[in-house]
Amino acid sequence: MKSIAALCATALLATNAMAQERYEIDPDLADSARGLIQEALESDLSFDIVESLTTEVGPRLAGSEAEARAREWGVRTGAAMSFDRVSIEEFAMPFWERGEMNITMTAPYEMELHGTALGGSGRSPRMRAINSEIVYFRSIHELTSALDGSLDGMIAFVDGEPMVRSQTGAGYGAANQRRRIGWQHAERAGARALVVRSVGSDSHRNPHTGMMSSDEGDWAEIPVIAISNPDADHLRRMHQSGQTVDLRISSTAGWRGETMSGNVVLDVVGRELPDEIVLIGGHLDSWDLGTGAIDDGSGVAITMAAAELIARMPERPRRTIRVVLFGAEEVGLLGARAYAQQHAAELENHVLATESDFGAGTIWQFNSYVNEEANGAISAIGRLLEPLGIVFGNHNTPGGGPDIIPMAAQGVPTVRLAQNGMDYFDLHHTPDDTLDKIDPEAMAQNVAAYAAMVYLAAEMDVEFRGRDED
Amino acid sequence: MKSIAALCATALLATNAMAQERYEIDPDLADSARGLIQEALESDLSFDIVESLTTEVGPRLAGSEAEARAREWGVRTGAAMSFDRVSIEEFAMPFWERGEMNITMTAPYEMELHGTALGGSGRSPRMRAINSEIVYFRSIHELTSALDGSLDGMIAFVDGEPMVRSQTGAGYGAANQRRRIGWQHAERAGARALVVRSVGSDSHRNPHTGMMSSDEGDWAEIPVIAISNPDADHLRRMHQSGQTVDLRISSTAGWRGETMSGNVVLDVVGRELPDEIVLIGGHLDSWDLGTGAIDDGSGVAITMAAAELIARMPERPRRTIRVVLFGAEEVGLLGARAYAQQHAAELENHVLATESDFGAGTIWQFNSYVNEEANGAISAIGRLLEPLGIVFGNHNTPGGGPDIIPMAAQGVPTVRLAQNGMDYFDLHHTPDDTLDKIDPEAMAQNVAAYAAMVYLAAEMDVEFRGRDED
Repeated sequence: MKSIAALCATALLATNAMAQERYEIDPDLADSARGLIQEALESDLSFDIVESLTTEVGPRLAGSEAEARAREWGVRTGAAMSFDRVSIEEFAMPFWERGEMNITMTAPYEMELHGTALGGSGRSPRMRAINSEIVYFRSIHELTSALDGSLDGMIAFVDGEPMVRSQTGAGYGAANQRRRIGWQHAERAGARALVVRSVGSDSHRNPHTGMMSSDEGDWAEIPVIAISNPDADHLRRMHQSGQTVDLRISSTAGWRGETMSGNVVLDVVGRELPDEIVLIGGHLDSWDLGTGAIDDGSGVAITMAAAELIARMPERPRRTIRVVLFGAEEVGLLGARAYAQQHAAELENHVLATESDFGAGTIWQFNSYVNEEANGAISAIGRLLEPLGIVFGNHNTPGGGPDIIPMAAQGVPTVRLAQNGMDYFDLHHTPDDTLDKIDPEAMAQNVAAYAAMVYLAAEMDVEFRGRDED
Repeated sequence: MKSIAALCATALLATNAMAQERYEIDPDLADSARGLIQEALESDLSFDIVESLTTEVGPRLAGSEAEARAREWGVRTGAAMSFDRVSIEEFAMPFWERGEMNITMTAPYEMELHGTALGGSGRSPRMRAINSEIVYFRSIHELTSALDGSLDGMIAFVDGEPMVRSQTGAGYGAANQRRRIGWQHAERAGARALVVRSVGSDSHRNPHTGMMSSDEGDWAEIPVIAISNPDADHLRRMHQSGQTVDLRISSTAGWRGETMSGNVVLDVVGRELPDEIVLIGGHLDSWDLGTGAIDDGSGVAITMAAAELIARMPERPRRTIRVVLFGAEEVGLLGARAYAQQHAAELENHVLATESDFGAGTIWQFNSYVNEEANGAISAIGRLLEPLGIVFGNHNTPGGGPDIIPMAAQGVPTVRLAQNGMDYFDLHHTPDDTLDKIDPEAMAQNVAAYAAMVYLAAEMDVEFRGRDED
């Protein structure tokens, strides 16, 4: 409970804030932004873009030939749109490939399970599958307590709860521990393979893949397999009824040496301050199980469409609008790190940055993390977005999306248009991440919000940079 | 438009019907039936049974070793319950097995599709996959028009619309034509393989399997593969954009000679008329992709639980209640045919029959097809079921479920408790047919309706047999 003094202080601050002059956007500018919103709501452009990407390129594993085709698609599509500059910025990366995998329950009876290797997984011994009894762990916490060598020759199965469904995606971090660090404890305890319950909120026979964490640069040598929630339920029931369960696992997953990836950079060059950059984007790579419509073809399409609608206006905005289609996000933000490194000298000219990487659900909240002097302008942008059903959250929410992390760490200001992710972790990293899951109307609302927000940020005479350290 | 005379005749009939004496169930009997309903609604018995079947036995392909284990489970479980007689009635059948299958798009780029062999499918040539361009057919109707030899060396792909979602499952028959007869036209036209859009109402990466129709005893020699709706959408978009699509298909599906299947028969023997049988049941076999929770572990569990609740009453009902767990339903009602044959002499003693084989959704309608003299009694049973949210449909709906067809053809009267199948064809014949899809509350409502209806049919002094030919 707060003290009376604290409550009074809060009240005083609130009064001061109200007393401050309210920032009003220039009426003509506001009209133009509202015009963009209207146009975006009536446009199919973003859906057409994501349809093109998912159909013409398909799945786009980081570092693969398919991801290279996606970059070609990006420059080809960008060049055919109204962008002023289109380029690929390459970087080298280690390449991990899923290969072939099979996981079958062999006792007490035979049943093939629906599983997939986690990113960074090792392989089974050449020419022979792993056959072993499973040792059941109720949670990752139980596995972390397993003694060294206690799983010699066994297969560890880490259960857990299906991910909680939420609008914000809260719960992903916690559930994700079994995916991220499970292998380190399984190997330490001597297991020949690790099987984990997928990190997902659905109840379909779809495994959810995703990257594991490296252990100071080392990766798993054993196969690490995520199985679907219904398959994990099945193993749980077998365990609860006292059954001994044997699995057979074969996998050819592994690292395949160095390969190239890259970021695609699409610029609408500013008419007055071409060096000042408002950066938006999504990531171009996807996991290979689906066609990456939700993760993150949507973000690519939403931000390309938003920039395109602005570029079709009679004149360029004052500042440059940059759309970055990041490479190799899924395997460790490699494109984002490369961008921050390759553009290190110009990051101080990045006046605002945000990424769309949470599907295509309706945007419901707007948050910011900018120079406090600009909070009034941010609030004014927020009011302009209200007719889209977007509420303003607060001015103290850092983080503009995964690929923004490296540049935000260098002080680039961020905003976030938070999407409704209630169904996001039903589809995330599964074969079910396909075009049919996108609601074109919700997607158009995203484009409307991005177009208006980015346009205003590029036009308004406001300094977003220079936030005091918290 | 009806004539005035016809309208008057209809009105007269209605008046006559109303003038008939309304059948009232004996109050003590009605109270007992309502007591059964209450008990069923509070019981987890049916869910426990289907959990046991799907967990301890798993998938149960017709004719497989797993289906034999399911029969053992049936007699073991039945014997541990209150049934008076428990037996297996075996029959021989030809055995088809899915084997291994892979379907991959190889041009314009490589992407693995989510498909499965249809029941009765042939295999690809040994040691080499089929590699070919696809010829796109918008519907089964287009394929039936393909000229002999016009598909020489090609792969036919038959698109179509996803199945319409409905409470009754209407639309299955029509959509099913591409699954049933497509192969006959593909082979006639010279195709090396046939790929069809799955018959299902969902939009997941799940293929729907199911049996094809034989052509006067002949089966497909080519591989016939159903792909998921999102995969079919993908191929449709490729086709619409003018792309040539190549597929690589390998399959080891095929017939494996003769094997044994069987029906499990569980009787609650009647106290006065032990030879008169009220027959309910479900089918014990399932497709091998899921664990057959919805199709038809539910029907097995609902009818076993309903009979068990009756058998736990202080005395046996007047007539015998027989629960039949039919074998080999999915591959052509083989168990049902065997039952009708093995019991041909006693079918005249089957006073009423119905099967639960449409999932575990809430029952919403009650229909009948019995001796017209018994319609009043049927209506009275219907009124007793109304508090469960069940409306009476009509007295002229033949069909008590797939496995009842052969005995109904011999004149056995039928009723049907129609379930809400709105989601049924999302799951039907897919890997997603697993225990988590069952709502225990809806299932308990099913048990309540079956228990009350079957109990009354076994107790009431009503003759259901002897309907005039329509």
